[in-house]
Amino acid sequence: MLAYGTLIGFDRMAADARLAPDLRRRAVLAVMAADEMRNYELLAVRLDELGADPETAMAPFAEPLEAFHGATAPRTWLEGLIKAYVGDGIADDFYREVAEFLPEEADRTLVQQVLHDTRHADFAVAEVRAAVEEDPSVAGRLALWARRLVGEAFSQAQRVAAEREALTDLVVAGSGDITGIGELFKRLTSAHSARMKALGLSN
Amino acid sequence: MLAYGTLIGFDRMAADARLAPDLRRRAVLAVMAADEMRNYELLAVRLDELGADPETAMAPFAEPLEAFHGATAPRTWLEGLIKAYVGDGIADDFYREVAEFLPEEADRTLVQQVLHDTRHADFAVAEVRAAVEEDPSVAGRLALWARRLVGEAFSQAQRVAAEREALTDLVVAGSGDITGIGELFKRLTSAHSARMKALGLSN
Repeated sequence: MLAYGTLIGFDRMAADARLAPDLRRRAVLAVMAADEMRNYELLAVRLDELGADPETAMAPFAEPLEAFHGATAPRTWLEGLIKAYVGDGIADDFYREVAEFLPEEADRTLVQQVLHDTRHADFAVAEVRAAVEEDPSVAGRLALWARRLVGEAFSQAQRVAAEREALTDLVVAGSGDITGIGELFKRLTSAHSARMKALGLSN
Repeated sequence: MLAYGTLIGFDRMAADARLAPDLRRRAVLAVMAADEMRNYELLAVRLDELGADPETAMAPFAEPLEAFHGATAPRTWLEGLIKAYVGDGIADDFYREVAEFLPEEADRTLVQQVLHDTRHADFAVAEVRAAVEEDPSVAGRLALWARRLVGEAFSQAQRVAAEREALTDLVVAGSGDITGIGELFKRLTSAHSARMKALGLSN
């Protein structure tokens, strides 16, 4: 799931970079996209080691991840940045938690390693804050956009959970019980709220 | 010119990766695209060191490079691969030659470093050869495509040469005289023929 996520994340972020108002900003998003492929390579090597063909292993996740990106194609530069910061942020938090449940240490380490580099978080935050300061009327629309991103992410995650028993079992076993799962989601939501606050988009 | 070339090369190759018939092949071209941004970062750092704003320094090359890519958008996976192998091949040969004329060793080394990784050349050659073996009738069309790539590359290079005196002066001074320039172009053409032969597309 993570491998296909990097592959399509690369594709979409590369396209979103075109929304940048200038070449300097475009390059920042393009570098973020390029990082996805470095991560893809690490994941593909591990899948190979495990005797799994990356293509076959990724196939079941293509549809939900395509659906997520199809429903959340940014129309503006700021929407693209928020998607990279807020959308990838919540996905990374989820993968980081689930990685802890993996039996092999090599896999736990690998997942931590391929989560998005935070070096561009400050850039996204500064860009969005500056835009909101300049024109406070955009805040409401951008906050709605972020909410839509999270809604789509959860909706596709639920779809994956329903179809992929192995993943669901991992999360359930790792969390301990239904309370544990509830707490996991509470942590995801609280980290999301912190990001929205950093962007100046919280209510 | 090289910096803008990596930026737009990334953008186009990322889009061309979608033409791949499967995820494994798509990932190969996506990784090649991602490499462009690693190179962009190195070039941007050097431009900064030289006191040049990357955006301003790249601006004069945007139009000819966009024109090249606009005129050579691949319609098929094989056209995309040939563009990556043949088009980038001839551009790299040119940059490699010109780099030798640069006064600073740091710049000569940097240019050599950011030229396209050859690790994927074997992949492109194997893919195209296999396709031609399976259906020899595609060879003529693909050879024409390669010729068009080279024609467009030379035509945009001429435009850059006409507009950018500093680059022309560098090539003229480095080559020594008109015979030297003729020999440089002979070397470019001969390396191009070798690549066409490797693809099984030479006459």
